[in-house]
Amino acid sequence: MSDLLAINTIRLLAVDTVAKANSGHPGAPMGLAPAAHTLFKQMRFNPRNPAWINRDRFVLSNGHACALLYTMLFLYGYDYTIDDLKSFRQLNSKTPGHPEAELPGVEVTTGPLGQGIANAVGLAIAQAQLAATYNKPNYELFSNYTYAFLGDGCLQEGVAQEAISLAGHLGDGLKLIAFWDDNQISIDGDTNVSFTEDVPAKFRAQGWEVLSVKDGNDDLEGIAAALAKAKTTNKPTLIRLPTIIGYGSLQQGTHGVHGSPLKPDDIKQLKKKFGFDPEQNFVVPREVTESYAKHVADNQQVEVEWNKLLTAYTKEYPELGQELHRRLDGKLPENWQKALPTYTVDDKPVASRKLSEIVLTSIEKELPELVGGSADLTGSNLTRWPDAVDFQPKSTGLGDFSGRYFRFGVREHGMGAIINGISAYGANFKAYGGTFLNFVSYASGAVRLSALSGHPIIWVATHDSIGLGEDGPTHQPIETLAHLRALPNLMVWRPADGNETSAAYLRAIESKHTPSIIALTRQNLPQLEHSSIEKAAKGGYTVYPVENPDIILVASGSEVSIAIDGAKKLGTEGVKASVVSIPDFFTFDSQARSYQLSVLPDGVPIMSVEVMSTFGWSKYSHEQFGINRFGISGPGPEIYKFFEFTAEGVADRASKVVQFYKGKELLSPLNKAFESVHA
Amino acid sequence: MSDLLAINTIRLLAVDTVAKANSGHPGAPMGLAPAAHTLFKQMRFNPRNPAWINRDRFVLSNGHACALLYTMLFLYGYDYTIDDLKSFRQLNSKTPGHPEAELPGVEVTTGPLGQGIANAVGLAIAQAQLAATYNKPNYELFSNYTYAFLGDGCLQEGVAQEAISLAGHLGDGLKLIAFWDDNQISIDGDTNVSFTEDVPAKFRAQGWEVLSVKDGNDDLEGIAAALAKAKTTNKPTLIRLPTIIGYGSLQQGTHGVHGSPLKPDDIKQLKKKFGFDPEQNFVVPREVTESYAKHVADNQQVEVEWNKLLTAYTKEYPELGQELHRRLDGKLPENWQKALPTYTVDDKPVASRKLSEIVLTSIEKELPELVGGSADLTGSNLTRWPDAVDFQPKSTGLGDFSGRYFRFGVREHGMGAIINGISAYGANFKAYGGTFLNFVSYASGAVRLSALSGHPIIWVATHDSIGLGEDGPTHQPIETLAHLRALPNLMVWRPADGNETSAAYLRAIESKHTPSIIALTRQNLPQLEHSSIEKAAKGGYTVYPVENPDIILVASGSEVSIAIDGAKKLGTEGVKASVVSIPDFFTFDSQARSYQLSVLPDGVPIMSVEVMSTFGWSKYSHEQFGINRFGISGPGPEIYKFFEFTAEGVADRASKVVQFYKGKELLSPLNKAFESVHA
Ligand SMILES: [Ca+2]
Ligand SMILES: [Ca+2]
Repeated sequence: MSDLLAINTIRLLAVDTVAKANSGHPGAPMGLAPAAHTLFKQMRFNPRNPAWINRDRFVLSNGHACALLYTMLFLYGYDYTIDDLKSFRQLNSKTPGHPEAELPGVEVTTGPLGQGIANAVGLAIAQAQLAATYNKPNYELFSNYTYAFLGDGCLQEGVAQEAISLAGHLGDGLKLIAFWDDNQISIDGDTNVSFTEDVPAKFRAQGWEVLSVKDGNDDLEGIAAALAKAKTTNKPTLIRLPTIIGYGSLQQGTHGVHGSPLKPDDIKQLKKKFGFDPEQNFVVPREVTESYAKHVADNQQVEVEWNKLLTAYTKEYPELGQELHRRLDGKLPENWQKALPTYTVDDKPVASRKLSEIVLTSIEKELPELVGGSADLTGSNLTRWPDAVDFQPKSTGLGDFSGRYFRFGVREHGMGAIINGISAYGANFKAYGGTFLNFVSYASGAVRLSALSGHPIIWVATHDSIGLGEDGPTHQPIETLAHLRALPNLMVWRPADGNETSAAYLRAIESKHTPSIIALTRQNLPQLEHSSIEKAAKGGYTVYPVENPDIILVASGSEVSIAIDGAKKLGTEGVKASVVSIPDFFTFDSQARSYQLSVLPDGVPIMSVEVMSTFGWSKYSHEQFGINRFGISGPGPEIYKFFEFTAEGVADRASKVVQFYKGKELLSPLNKAFESVHA
Repeated sequence: MSDLLAINTIRLLAVDTVAKANSGHPGAPMGLAPAAHTLFKQMRFNPRNPAWINRDRFVLSNGHACALLYTMLFLYGYDYTIDDLKSFRQLNSKTPGHPEAELPGVEVTTGPLGQGIANAVGLAIAQAQLAATYNKPNYELFSNYTYAFLGDGCLQEGVAQEAISLAGHLGDGLKLIAFWDDNQISIDGDTNVSFTEDVPAKFRAQGWEVLSVKDGNDDLEGIAAALAKAKTTNKPTLIRLPTIIGYGSLQQGTHGVHGSPLKPDDIKQLKKKFGFDPEQNFVVPREVTESYAKHVADNQQVEVEWNKLLTAYTKEYPELGQELHRRLDGKLPENWQKALPTYTVDDKPVASRKLSEIVLTSIEKELPELVGGSADLTGSNLTRWPDAVDFQPKSTGLGDFSGRYFRFGVREHGMGAIINGISAYGANFKAYGGTFLNFVSYASGAVRLSALSGHPIIWVATHDSIGLGEDGPTHQPIETLAHLRALPNLMVWRPADGNETSAAYLRAIESKHTPSIIALTRQNLPQLEHSSIEKAAKGGYTVYPVENPDIILVASGSEVSIAIDGAKKLGTEGVKASVVSIPDFFTFDSQARSYQLSVLPDGVPIMSVEVMSTFGWSKYSHEQFGINRFGISGPGPEIYKFFEFTAEGVADRASKVVQFYKGKELLSPLNKAFESVHA
């Protein structure tokens, strides 16, 4: 089979796919087909077992070009049919408008620009960490490459720049090869309207190897040679690939072919030009199918050999081998959760960021899959256990690739996308990233994809409120928890004490498909009398019970103990107040309605207490005590007083609430007329 | 006076300030004092009139070093006293933990890393745009420079990288000079743990001039020479300034001096070393005061001359002069709002992104201060009026600096911070940025600072829901509006038709201190019978009135017409349903409670209807119909059906709600036991 036949098949399938949908992006697939064909030809992967751990990874960072990816996956015999291509971008099809991680052969969800290349950095880090941890002489279990395609759009995004910079720093040994689709076109037209930097020089300044192909449309040997050369360097490599967007179309080289289907006449001339029947659609020449099938058969043999290698390895290194088997099975060690610390009311007050450090230090020994770091706030986030080894190239003298602690630099968004990539690698990785809660917002794009793709990563988000004090309103979260709680499939823990902190980690580590934010205080919190891991792990529970309360106070994190103090004060004034702690809305929402109503029943006024925006708390409460303005700089305890978050401030408002609702019929806010069908 | 005396005065004031607060960052001020002294000495500004429009701007991008900034402003006689320095980081002081834009002499709020340098790019763009628009031969009204200090942290942030890249592209003529505090230290220790790129080479690759000072601690002549040289190039310039963090401290050169006060003994030896009395604090030698006062006096004369120039200019160019006077007074043209289009129910359905384009095209003629652009989605956001001129260096042949349309590239976060900077310049700039609503999240950090600092910028946020269709869940906002609505001081408009779109722009353009997001549809929306600019400008109103309703449906944007269809269907079934449109929570929340309760009264069940997360809607409604999961790829209308957002889907749920609450006493969710004191 000629390579050109395969390449034109790819081009025309992508064109037909977009045309049939009457929606999508034909231009990039047409320009990138030669690179895709050449790259896949030398990749190791098994379409019958897309989860094979040592497969090469391919990330389409310019996710809008997904007609290309679906075409490749279809041609290589992944679980797609020609009808799947024909239902591109249709409701509930297997070929949605951007690639989604749960689809066969799709490594990570892309489309939001810049995320894919940052995920690819994470995938390459994961490979390097596993190789350094498990590979032994004659047992190169982890040797895969991570490849990425990226367009000009990705290169302009800050998240990509952050990850590219870190990859350059970590470079010595990362098996990462990225193709830059240098087609001089973006949606606004010629890239010269906004993007005129010297990309190769910029990458080199950041420690990357940069190679160039003369002509990405025709020079297959050049592409193959660049790939081969890239594998001889230890650095991550960018291959510049000058292409013509929409290659072959009458409109080639313009943004007219970027985001709209080609016109019928254009498609016909294209098929003629490529030697295909202009009247036929979705044509796959037999030679192409056969040639690709041959490559798959070879690859399957590679996996067979690899499995043999793992068996032999497990005999020679039984402990490591069994650990690896466990991780590949996606199982946690038995009884790992016994390492979670518990507390009683007599234990001393501790900041929950410190409680988090105690958890990490305790569980890391049980969980070799636990890896993480901080965006340059290690000493503030307390994310590093005492004898952690840094993940650094050995050449730096600062650590090695078996290290499990990452120095992400001041790169929150990049960090978020990188831990998504580490998680996407598999092998049960539990990856976390630390920063101040307020700066999780810098990484919103990556957090959203954690939730959408179901990467069970963890954000260690310290300094979680006005309680951080002097740093002031630029650092004090107000809207942040509302933002995160409104995201589907995201746990947002805000533990009130030691037991609740352990519960947060229990759920976060156990999670298979739901990421977690753990919001932690800078300031000390007392240990609560009625908290327990078991209760907190339900997401919400009565932490200060009284019989027949006149009012229920519902709070989270640092405000739970203040609410309890308020309830005690109310008690002395003859008002019976109980307190409910809701450390995580997502988990509480997943409990049976009957349990929820036992915690927040009909007939009792409920007031929320949290030093944040009240936005969203009305789902659990009739009245809200919060802070619907920005914070203020000053010592933390004084700020709490300033905003009246004290026993008195709580009791005062609670009394008003009791008065207001006296004699009024009240439903629990959780007692609903209809259940959302889509929750 | 010797320069060294002034520099050591600055260092010690900063040290004393941090020590007195027992909180803050002494290291960077100590290292940067020589540069600050040398820079301010040649800057044009008037402490008696910090708003003088042609002043040089100084941005402290590494905002944690604010003890330095407050010290400089105090020494130069801005409205700060020594007691203000002594109450650094205390509650309600004038010297909060990070610099805040509303303080005298502080140009922009910084602290969240990377924002400041991006703001500085915006400030420089604003200067260039005004210069190209108003300067005439012999009338160089706008000639100021924008200076920035930035640390290693800023350089790692994506938002900074985006802005730096765009500044390099726009470079030919931007009066922007940044000092990189190259002190090899960040919070995690030596920068070599994560930040090893070749910064000068990277800046050069992006079109910047890069200069180097040999020793930032001592070489004052070198700093002055670099500044002078920077002014001879047309490019934005980075001056590399190797400094020792905490210069003079026993712990100098370590991260130990980054974020904690110096120890008392250390401060004493420092004062001795610098020739100051070790027992005295907050000392300002008379010579320093006098020398700085002299510079201020000179500068005041510069402003006097400038005012004369403006007077002469206004005589020679009366039209431009008066326009400029109006802008400097912060006034809009009289009757500008008459340019806002209005619609009747007979007008045809139009997508609100198109309605937005019609508004922009209509009002831009009235408002020369209206400038904006898109993050590479011009044709999708419809942000460019037909005969707009692009803001580009003339040398590109693509526009000139009088242009009011920006090609931001795929740089949402950078765009957000840049338009904050343009707004911060003054001259009544109304700056907007366009992207898909979902990708406003990429810019969360900048949006938060728009709200915190009160920059009345505008986000043109199109493709605002599942209605965008085929692009699928990666592009469909679910949590986005909840996130933005939870931010204090932010209008989040989601207009339902043409009149509401005009109302959104009316409020956004009129706004002095509150930014706006305008969420707009890709799909067509019908013109509503009862909408008007006046009613919508209240943020919420009854758009489909019925007498004594059995239920009130409350909706926003594209769901308002669906709710009305649902109400009509309910009417045929004997259920009386009215519909309330809430195009903006912030504006509705600012209405009198009596008005709010007239719209959402006691005694009637209220159900919200919006194709987003229901999070937050319980503040206005008893029941919520929304989408608490991610979206799906497919044609927009089919997705609406899939999620049952149709007249039938609405009516079905509304009937259940009416049944459920029949005979039950019901308060409006807006009828509250207590008013938040901090709202
Ligand atoms: Ca491109
Ligand atoms: Ca530094």
